Order: sequence, then structure tokens, then C-alpha cells
Amino acid sequence: MIKAAIMGYGNLGKGVEKALVKAEDMELVGVFTRRDPAGVKVDSGAKAFHADDLENMKDDIDVLIICGGSATDLPEMTPKYAAMYNVIDSFDTHANIPVHFKNVDEAAKKAGKIGIISCGWDPGMFSLNRLYAHSVLPGGKDYTFWGKGVSQGHSDAIRRIEGVADARQYTVPVPEALEAVRKGENPELTTRQKHTRLCYVVAKEGADKDKITEEIVNMPNYFADYDTTVNFITAEEMAANHSGLPHGGSVIYSGSTGDGTNKHVIEYSLKLDSNPEFTGSVLVAYARAAVRMNKAGDSGAKTVFDVAPALLSPLSGEEIRAHML
Amino acid sequence: MIKAAIMGYGNLGKGVEKALVKAEDMELVGVFTRRDPAGVKVDSGAKAFHADDLENMKDDIDVLIICGGSATDLPEMTPKYAAMYNVIDSFDTHANIPVHFKNVDEAAKKAGKIGIISCGWDPGMFSLNRLYAHSVLPGGKDYTFWGKGVSQGHSDAIRRIEGVADARQYTVPVPEALEAVRKGENPELTTRQKHTRLCYVVAKEGADKDKITEEIVNMPNYFADYDTTVNFITAEEMAANHSGLPHGGSVIYSGSTGDGTNKHVIEYSLKLDSNPEFTGSVLVAYARAAVRMNKAGDSGAKTVFDVAPALLSPLSGEEIRAHML
Repeated sequence: MIKAAIMGYGNLGKGVEKALVKAEDMELVGVFTRRDPAGVKVDSGAKAFHADDLENMKDDIDVLIICGGSATDLPEMTPKYAAMYNVIDSFDTHANIPVHFKNVDEAAKKAGKIGIISCGWDPGMFSLNRLYAHSVLPGGKDYTFWGKGVSQGHSDAIRRIEGVADARQYTVPVPEALEAVRKGENPELTTRQKHTRLCYVVAKEGADKDKITEEIVNMPNYFADYDTTVNFITAEEMAANHSGLPHGGSVIYSGSTGDGTNKHVIEYSLKLDSNPEFTGSVLVAYARAAVRMNKAGDSGAKTVFDVAPALLSPLSGEEIRAHML
Repeated sequence: MIKAAIMGYGNLGKGVEKALVKAEDMELVGVFTRRDPAGVKVDSGAKAFHADDLENMKDDIDVLIICGGSATDLPEMTPKYAAMYNVIDSFDTHANIPVHFKNVDEAAKKAGKIGIISCGWDPGMFSLNRLYAHSVLPGGKDYTFWGKGVSQGHSDAIRRIEGVADARQYTVPVPEALEAVRKGENPELTTRQKHTRLCYVVAKEGADKDKITEEIVNMPNYFADYDTTVNFITAEEMAANHSGLPHGGSVIYSGSTGDGTNKHVIEYSLKLDSNPEFTGSVLVAYARAAVRMNKAGDSGAKTVFDVAPALLSPLSGEEIRAHML
């Protein structure tokens, strides 16, 4: 049995826990938190520990799955714990991946451990599909569409506006853009032409709804470059219709062979009822691979690109060749 | 530059050649044939050799891409050449993969070479998607649909019927079945419920068309288990509308997380103008990986499951992390 532990117990940590419970070859040693562990109720009944306990549990944990935020948690945590454990994270601040990779690589190599970074579905499964497609059909073009799905970052941004009690933001691909890309037309698309943003907002009593709408649609980085629709709903409607965290999207690659006359379109798409539970499931499969790579003598920072697919499955080589090849 | 050679120069060998011409880090040493090489005109201008010359060119070739049939060519050729070269094939007789793997493994290990078998899109890219999905969401169900596309085996089977001058058979997924699977309904589907078969036939003058139709639709293994439509057309219509070898299909996986309430659907689909050119492109990317794995000290039989995705790309780790992660 692979002994896995979770660092951080928010939506993602709970998704990882659910995936670990289903993994027959893995067990959950415990959940680690920077809060008081006495106040953390772990769904599966596993023990809650304080993060400081990680200093003294090196023999008890084969892989630590770090479920923190990319802005401040992971840049500090992943290199720190890669110096002690095989680790994996879902770091997704694209511009900072080279620095994060370097920091994790140095710590992990020194400790003789594996650190897989930027794992999940984007970055993660979507990245794999971009790489496979570019490698097989060089010179083509990849498009990534997200949604329809809840963006937690955009929902949080709306919640910070004065007069907003609650909010949920859906990212929605523009159907005409999707269609053109699927046909292999290789269109040039602006940000606005690819996605729209659909917001459901519960306003506080007496709040100025027009002012809230103006603040949302003009918010730089988050909404200003998109066509945004704002719908005001009641707290009851929010609870009844928008409590889930669905997401998904497509990576579509359009390439050609020979002199370019034969065109090929490759599409990978996800429709997910729960973004954190699916992301957690990806992390658990790659946590298994991290332990196996380390046992085979490898160390340093890795991404999904470096992991042979067979390492993700609990089944043997014979079994996967017989049933999936 | 990676020095690649092609064994066998039919549709697939020509597809491999086109992909090699586009690969900036690879060069085509030559095409090897069991025919008289003087009679083989190689499209790119590369040299044609007799297959027997492979006995004496071990220093000139880094990887041999074997483009033969799965019935009789590959079971003999791939182990034979794995004893001399890094090799790759597209062996697709599913029931015989364990034996083929074993034979190639023994020869390749003894020679210190890599032999990648069963590469292309199914087996190949489709297999990868089955494995990734099963590994991330254990306990779900995978469905594979082929088409709309030309099945060369089925077209050949029709051509062997008395009175048939030419034929083209398209495999077509049943839209209702596809729809149910995409919705995550996990239906139980018979062979007949998944695909239909659409045939275009040029009859010889005076041939009995009703008899041809009867022979097609009742042909065991090929057509008897399917709803089959037979259309008689002229040789001119055949040349104008059915000269290509398009194909494609989808792998759709339906799984869940937690207690099963959150469902997730993963779909990978291909729309290919040319089946042999796309398959050839996959073989070339994996030929690159075979050489790299061998240089790193690895040997023996491999499948797409054993190859880390980064090995397929001519780009560096830094480049793929920057542009595709």
C-alpha cells in the first residue's frame, strides 16, 4: 500500500481524499493543516495533524499531496516539502512555472525525492493533449476552450464587490468559435470571441444593482475583455441551482500531413460535475506515479510530460496491454 | 539528426515518409522492400534498398519503422529486426498482442534495443486515452466508436466477391448510441447498436447485384452482425467521391467520484482526412522516443503506455513546459 497524506483541506483536499478512498493500492495516512487540527473534521475518518508534524513523519508517508493556492501557498510549500517527501501539487500560475519548477527541482534532487508540479486538468490532462497533438502533427494549432463551468477565482472577485452577498461565475465557450475550430478552419480569435462570462449574483438588501453590474463588467483582467451577463437571483435560487462546482472544456488541435491537403482534427474534452473532485482524482493517479518513479531511482521536479502513462495505473503491464491497448 | 528507415512501402510506409520529411530532427535513410528496389519510386527521392540490405546497415540506422500487415508480416518481421535495430510497428491483432510483445521483448532485450509495438491511433492514441481515463477515474466504463471512415479490411473483403470491380466500406457510428454515451448514461450496446456499415460497390458488367448485396450483408465476422447498406455506383463516382482514406472516431469514458453522485465524461476524438498519413505521423513521433529511450539505456518491448510524453517532442523540456503546460 502506498501511504499518502494530504496537506491542506479545502475543496481540493476533500476531492483528493475521495479519490484516495477509492484507490485500492493507496491509504490515507492523514490530513495536515495549518489550522488547529482539533477543529478539522475529516470526512473519511482519517486523522488530522498540524502541518508542523510533517517535520517528524518521514517514515510514515510515501507521498504528500499538497492542496494549496498557487498565489502564495504552493511557491513556498512545494519546495519546502519536496526536501522531505515525494510531493505533488496543482500549481497553475502559468508565468511562474519555470521558477517553481526550478525551486522544486533543486529541493527534490537534493533530497532524492520526486516533485510533480502543475498537475490536474489544466495544467494537466489538457497539457498532455496539447503535447501529444503537437508531437504527432507538428506545425498545427491548438485551441483551449474552458466551460461551461464555474470559475472560483471569478466568483470570488465578484463577492468582493460592495453590496454582493454571494456570486457564481460561469465561463462559457462561444459556440460559433468552437464550431469553426472543430471544422479545422484555424480562426484567429480574440479573448472576447472565445468565451463569454455568465454571472449569478445575490445582492444584499438595498444594494445598488446597476452599480454592481457596472463594477463587474468593467473589472480589469477578470471581465473587461469579455462579454459578460449579470443575473440577480435570490439566495434560495443560488442554493438550489448553483451549489455545484461543474467545469470542463476542450483542447482542439488542427493540423495536416504531407503538403497540407490532408487535415486532421484532434479533440479532447471534459464534462465534469465536480472540478475539485476530478482534479483530486488526477492528483492521486500522479501521486502513485511519483512513488513509483522515486522507487525506480529517479528524483527532481517533474510534470505530466515526464510520466509514462503506465505508471498511473494500479494494474500491471500485462493487464493494461490486455484490456486497454 | 535521428536516422530513420522504413521497411515496407505501401500506404502506411508512404504516410511515415511524409511525416519524416516534416520532422526537423530526423532524416530518412531509405525505404526497404522485399520487392526489387529498382522498381520502387520513393516519393521524397530517398533511396530504395532491398530488405536483405538491413543485415549490413546497423551503423546507418537509428530506428526502423516497420510498415507491414499484422496477419503475417509483423509477427515475423518485428522480432527479427528488433534483434538488430530499434524498431516500431503498428501491430493491431488484439488477441495476439501478448505473444507479439513477448517475442519482440526477447529479441530486443538480447540486442539491447527498443521495440515499440502496436503504435498508431487504435491501438495507440485511443489506447492512451483509455488508460489515462481508467487511471484517473477507476471503476468507470470506456466506449470506442470508429468512423465515419474507410475500413480497408472490409473494402478488401467486398472486392473478393464475384462480380465486384471495386468497393469502399465506411464504418459509421450510430448517432443515438454516441449521444447516450456522451450523456454518461453507460448503456449496454450490442455490436449492431454501435456501428452501421455503408458500402459503395462498382459491379462488373452483367453482374448480379442482388446476389452481391446478399453476399455482403451476410458475410460472417465482417457484416453479418451489422446493419449494412449497399449502394452500387459507377467507377467514375468511385474515383470522384471515394478516393481518400478518411477515418477517425472517439474514445468516451464515463466515470464518477465520491459516492458516485458526481459524474464525469472524458472524450477523445479524431477526424482524419488520411488514416495512413496520421498513423504514419504517430509512428514517427514514437520512433523518436524509441531512439531516446535506447540512448538512455533502456531496452525491450514497449507500448505507448511505457513512453513518457516528453520523449515524443523534438522540443526541450523548458520549451514544452513554457508553451504547452
